[in-house]
Amino acid sequence: MDDRIRDHAETLVDWSARIEAGDDVVVRVDEGAHDLAVAVAETLGERGANLVTVATSEEVRRAYLRAHGAEFDTDPAYELALYEEADSVLTLGGGRNTAATADVPADRTQRYDRAREGVREARLATDWVSTVHPTRSLAQAAGMSYDAYREFVYDAALRDWEALAEEMARLKDILDAGSEVRVVNEGTDLTMSVDGRTAVNSAASVVYDSHNLPSGEVFTAPYDTAGVVTFDVPMTVRGREVRDVKLTFKDGVVVDWEARQGEDVVTEVIETDAGSRQLGELGIGMNRGIDRPTGRTLFDEKMAGTVHLALGRAYEACLPDGESGTDSAVHVDLITDMTGDSRIEVDGDVVQRNGLFRWEAGFEEEPTEGTDGS
Amino acid sequence: MDDRIRDHAETLVDWSARIEAGDDVVVRVDEGAHDLAVAVAETLGERGANLVTVATSEEVRRAYLRAHGAEFDTDPAYELALYEEADSVLTLGGGRNTAATADVPADRTQRYDRAREGVREARLATDWVSTVHPTRSLAQAAGMSYDAYREFVYDAALRDWEALAEEMARLKDILDAGSEVRVVNEGTDLTMSVDGRTAVNSAASVVYDSHNLPSGEVFTAPYDTAGVVTFDVPMTVRGREVRDVKLTFKDGVVVDWEARQGEDVVTEVIETDAGSRQLGELGIGMNRGIDRPTGRTLFDEKMAGTVHLALGRAYEACLPDGESGTDSAVHVDLITDMTGDSRIEVDGDVVQRNGLFRWEAGFEEEPTEGTDGS
Repeated sequence: MDDRIRDHAETLVDWSARIEAGDDVVVRVDEGAHDLAVAVAETLGERGANLVTVATSEEVRRAYLRAHGAEFDTDPAYELALYEEADSVLTLGGGRNTAATADVPADRTQRYDRAREGVREARLATDWVSTVHPTRSLAQAAGMSYDAYREFVYDAALRDWEALAEEMARLKDILDAGSEVRVVNEGTDLTMSVDGRTAVNSAASVVYDSHNLPSGEVFTAPYDTAGVVTFDVPMTVRGREVRDVKLTFKDGVVVDWEARQGEDVVTEVIETDAGSRQLGELGIGMNRGIDRPTGRTLFDEKMAGTVHLALGRAYEACLPDGESGTDSAVHVDLITDMTGDSRIEVDGDVVQRNGLFRWEAGFEEEPTEGTDGS
Repeated sequence: MDDRIRDHAETLVDWSARIEAGDDVVVRVDEGAHDLAVAVAETLGERGANLVTVATSEEVRRAYLRAHGAEFDTDPAYELALYEEADSVLTLGGGRNTAATADVPADRTQRYDRAREGVREARLATDWVSTVHPTRSLAQAAGMSYDAYREFVYDAALRDWEALAEEMARLKDILDAGSEVRVVNEGTDLTMSVDGRTAVNSAASVVYDSHNLPSGEVFTAPYDTAGVVTFDVPMTVRGREVRDVKLTFKDGVVVDWEARQGEDVVTEVIETDAGSRQLGELGIGMNRGIDRPTGRTLFDEKMAGTVHLALGRAYEACLPDGESGTDSAVHVDLITDMTGDSRIEVDGDVVQRNGLFRWEAGFEEEPTEGTDGS
């Protein structure tokens, strides 16, 4: 077995999920993730944890959903019991065809998911972590060779998480102490308030309330957004490509928008409800293992040198007790590149310039001629 | 998809497990059985049943067991809850390597299974059915091409089960009404009592208390066995090949034994405990779709024109209420071919001669010269 698969499993079990002897662990395995499942099983065995393996084949799901014409039962007792009694749920993504469920009617999937809302909540009440095993299908979706894609995934997932968590804590402290964040790049000059909000140090571990491996971002819940932002990193939203989305905010609300491609889906998202016109998340990517967008939010939004903003729902962890942030049925991330002529300011202090944080070698306190606004 | 896979799924769901709308169904999927899982999911969707898919990869199991050096937890609550709350459990066998767990220490597996005795009981308390999806690995183990093996499996599993159940009911009635069974072939002349015992019409359906697809045998729990039997169908017992096992019974107990190959494992079985010296089962194969032994008991013992006897534990379904049959830690099936110069008698009446039942075309009431004893 490729040593990296074993490292991936150990990072998942030890760093991310903090599994201990006697823990009741559900491992959910996508059809192409068998090799990772073997390595995870080995690691769980070594730790003395218990193991139930659930298959999450998308082809099985497709066949079931297409055939099931009736109402779905609400939260079947046996499935609910499995997750309610579990301590941890590890989801190993990695299918063999990203379009495997392309011909399942969207409303069928929605009805199924709605009927299983309690099962989902039970799963999210455990120490859950989602990761991805590199498959040829995912390599294809990323436009990469299998070999290069594996390298890419392991570069992203096998970080020195402890060191990164410490670095991210510095940014979290700045955001938590700050009131106003300003994001500037070519096509963007946006201010938003973060006063009273708490940033999450998303260091790919349940102890940081971070449930994805890889992770590597600091995010908070902004409000009172004003200005203009252009998202120049290519994204796929609801299965459709969007390019160069430009949003104009006034008093915390989107008042104007356009896109070079996919404007219809952007409109669809924005017009969902009141909350979908506001930001729910400001996230700052800090994972230097992710060096390019691959069309998969799990990776793209963590990319060092990017900022992402989400229209819609805010994360509860960022909000003061009892205060509600942006509420919405949607949460759609859009990403802008900060490695060009860019900066992030907190209360007027430049925290990051041209993709480099103030604590990084090469950071310029004052911009040299030609790097800012010229 | 191969139509036979769909037929297999429908036979499993409708005939065998009798799944109805709203049933909570666990589908356990071996690594090579994905195609059957897709077809089963489709059928379950059509019937409006609920679906949880558990992966039963032997490589995952191997990795977990080898790594787990500590004591196993007894019946983990989450796994127990899944099966306790389930209505049906469908097990889809079909791995990619029949030797996948060959390097797991036997005592490790035994300790694991013992710790999960409650989970197993919960599973067996549901309407469970086990079947096999033909894989290249199983074809290899049977010494057959993949194409021929698929043909073989579907011939065995896709019977007219209703008609076969009716035919098997005739044999069950004869055995239930009878007192003494005599089995005769070259190398065999064995009598046993079945008085007071109830035969099971194993017609591959939970309504017949029959939990394997394919099935197709009638079995009961004999006692007071006397005489000699030779098992000429090649078998694999505990991973070792046994050939031409010959047992001599007196007063219900094995008093002498020999084997052309594998005598040591036969000795091991017989010397397990008091019950392992007695018969726990007399089974009569009636599945005409199974035309050759393939080294897998699930198929071999159902083969039309064979009789199998098991050393060890009897099935409770065959015993009168409150009466205990042969009790043992083992249940090892051995098979003898009845298509040669052979007969099965019940209380002196010939029920089957040379592999043909008395209700079949070609059955000879009185043997013609040369077919009996010459």
